[in-house]
Amino acid sequence: MKRILVAIQTGQAEQARFRQIAEECQKECEFLFTTMEEATEKEIAEADFIVGNVSPQKIRASEKLQVLQLFSAGADPYLKPGILSEKTLLCNATGAYGQAVSEHAFALTMMLIKKLHLYRSSQMRSCWEDHGMVSSLSGATVLVVGLGDIGLSYARMVKAMGAKVIGVKRRSGDCPEYVDKLVLTTEIDAVLPEADVILSVLPSTKETAYFYTEERFAKMKKTAVFVNCGRGNAVSSDTLLRALQSGQIKAAAIDVCEMEPLPPDSPLWGEENLVITSHVAGNFHLDSIYRGVIEIACENLKHWLTGEDLLNVVDPTTGYKR
Amino acid sequence: MKRILVAIQTGQAEQARFRQIAEECQKECEFLFTTMEEATEKEIAEADFIVGNVSPQKIRASEKLQVLQLFSAGADPYLKPGILSEKTLLCNATGAYGQAVSEHAFALTMMLIKKLHLYRSSQMRSCWEDHGMVSSLSGATVLVVGLGDIGLSYARMVKAMGAKVIGVKRRSGDCPEYVDKLVLTTEIDAVLPEADVILSVLPSTKETAYFYTEERFAKMKKTAVFVNCGRGNAVSSDTLLRALQSGQIKAAAIDVCEMEPLPPDSPLWGEENLVITSHVAGNFHLDSIYRGVIEIACENLKHWLTGEDLLNVVDPTTGYKR
Repeated sequence: MKRILVAIQTGQAEQARFRQIAEECQKECEFLFTTMEEATEKEIAEADFIVGNVSPQKIRASEKLQVLQLFSAGADPYLKPGILSEKTLLCNATGAYGQAVSEHAFALTMMLIKKLHLYRSSQMRSCWEDHGMVSSLSGATVLVVGLGDIGLSYARMVKAMGAKVIGVKRRSGDCPEYVDKLVLTTEIDAVLPEADVILSVLPSTKETAYFYTEERFAKMKKTAVFVNCGRGNAVSSDTLLRALQSGQIKAAAIDVCEMEPLPPDSPLWGEENLVITSHVAGNFHLDSIYRGVIEIACENLKHWLTGEDLLNVVDPTTGYKR
Repeated sequence: MKRILVAIQTGQAEQARFRQIAEECQKECEFLFTTMEEATEKEIAEADFIVGNVSPQKIRASEKLQVLQLFSAGADPYLKPGILSEKTLLCNATGAYGQAVSEHAFALTMMLIKKLHLYRSSQMRSCWEDHGMVSSLSGATVLVVGLGDIGLSYARMVKAMGAKVIGVKRRSGDCPEYVDKLVLTTEIDAVLPEADVILSVLPSTKETAYFYTEERFAKMKKTAVFVNCGRGNAVSSDTLLRALQSGQIKAAAIDVCEMEPLPPDSPLWGEENLVITSHVAGNFHLDSIYRGVIEIACENLKHWLTGEDLLNVVDPTTGYKR
């Protein structure tokens, strides 16, 4: 008897789907459907397979736990020593977030290049004013840093608007569709000066912490816009603020911050050329995310019950999908 | 000797281009390069061909004026009785604005469906908060009301994001590329209930004044977003405000108002679910507009000098291009 703890909000349809998988695989499973907050230490300790981002502290390196299927793309809290047993396979939900996060990042990009953030500020002062020239993605060079499903989906959108896309990734490989040129992360300094738009969707790993240094902002065009929808620690708040205030770049938008929630007294809030959204690009805010997460979880339950290799297994040394 | 008054900011390159056209056509022309504001009544009275939106009052139905080539798409101030002689051909610059206005409208659309206007408001209160579910253009139905170059360019963009496009136009014809279904303006009431997004790029004519009535807003989805980048009098400020405040539609964005500039005491400014930009979608804010206007003006000068039919001639009875 396998114990499956589904610690994510589900309705009857989703619960029936999980049960059906066990039946189809002819495995006896006991399902417990709860939520991430309500899952108790005892329930977690007894589970063989968990779906959901249960509190890392409650897992206590359970030796029984074979699979922890997260609903998030990021997995950092579970990678720290002492959280998961070496026996536990950690799987993320990369793939479920591509559409939602890329569309949010794309909307932020359009907002910045059309100066809609400045017009919104004007509106709040009841002020009919003209903020001058804007730019276009048509003919622009867009650097997409991180070419997972979010980056590739974003690349497709900006390409449809007429942009030239330079993709930046860790490992060399074939140039994907919608990407005109591929460079390695270690070569980014050479292409930063070309970019009109820089989208960062780097995950949080040792290598990507504070990746955007003052030196890197200095290499960007003064007219460039920078969008971060990856992880907040890719750039420090101070560095970003200085880059904006000194005019090293034109504008920026961030859905993620070095410290979240961003403290009320942070000077970032008042920076006119910065747009802040509160880590909402993913976060189940688009129907497709929930559907995608359930899809991945069901698929991995099936793989696990039938002894197949799991999908989206996180490599604990890099934090990326293997 | 033809007198050509170019009442639009030009540099040496543009001036040389106009002169070259006269040379190539082997016509003796006297060019006067000035600006729209500086053009005098005398200069206007002596001109055979004018490029630029000179003050309508200064034209005084000049019998000498054969062509007035506007740099705007809208031509309404010149259509009133007593402004132009019947001998004068009025040409607009339709075509020059397609890219700029459609991109602005598209950016506004993305802003609304991703609730970026609400996050910008939160930011201005230093408030890290969550505005909940958003929507996507993928799978959405977008109504494009007015299928000139702006509407068609917008249709292409939303189509690339996965939307179904319903085009609305005055006259029946073949369904253009990027449009899934075509309906006549008179049939709009039947399709309003289907739309997740309504873009209005109607020009200002007798038929389109106050086109979006309270009854029409009542037919829209409560989740719909409405974007007006055409002419301000397509919807009255009161009607729009009521539609938003009563929750008949979810959100709206307008680049044009019934009265411009929008008075500082207008209640529209403070409506949280309304985004206002100050008639800046066109207005030479993207390089492509100026280049397009000069292109059209040069082309029409050539046509006129060689006796060919002019492009973009405005029909005084409809206000549209013939």
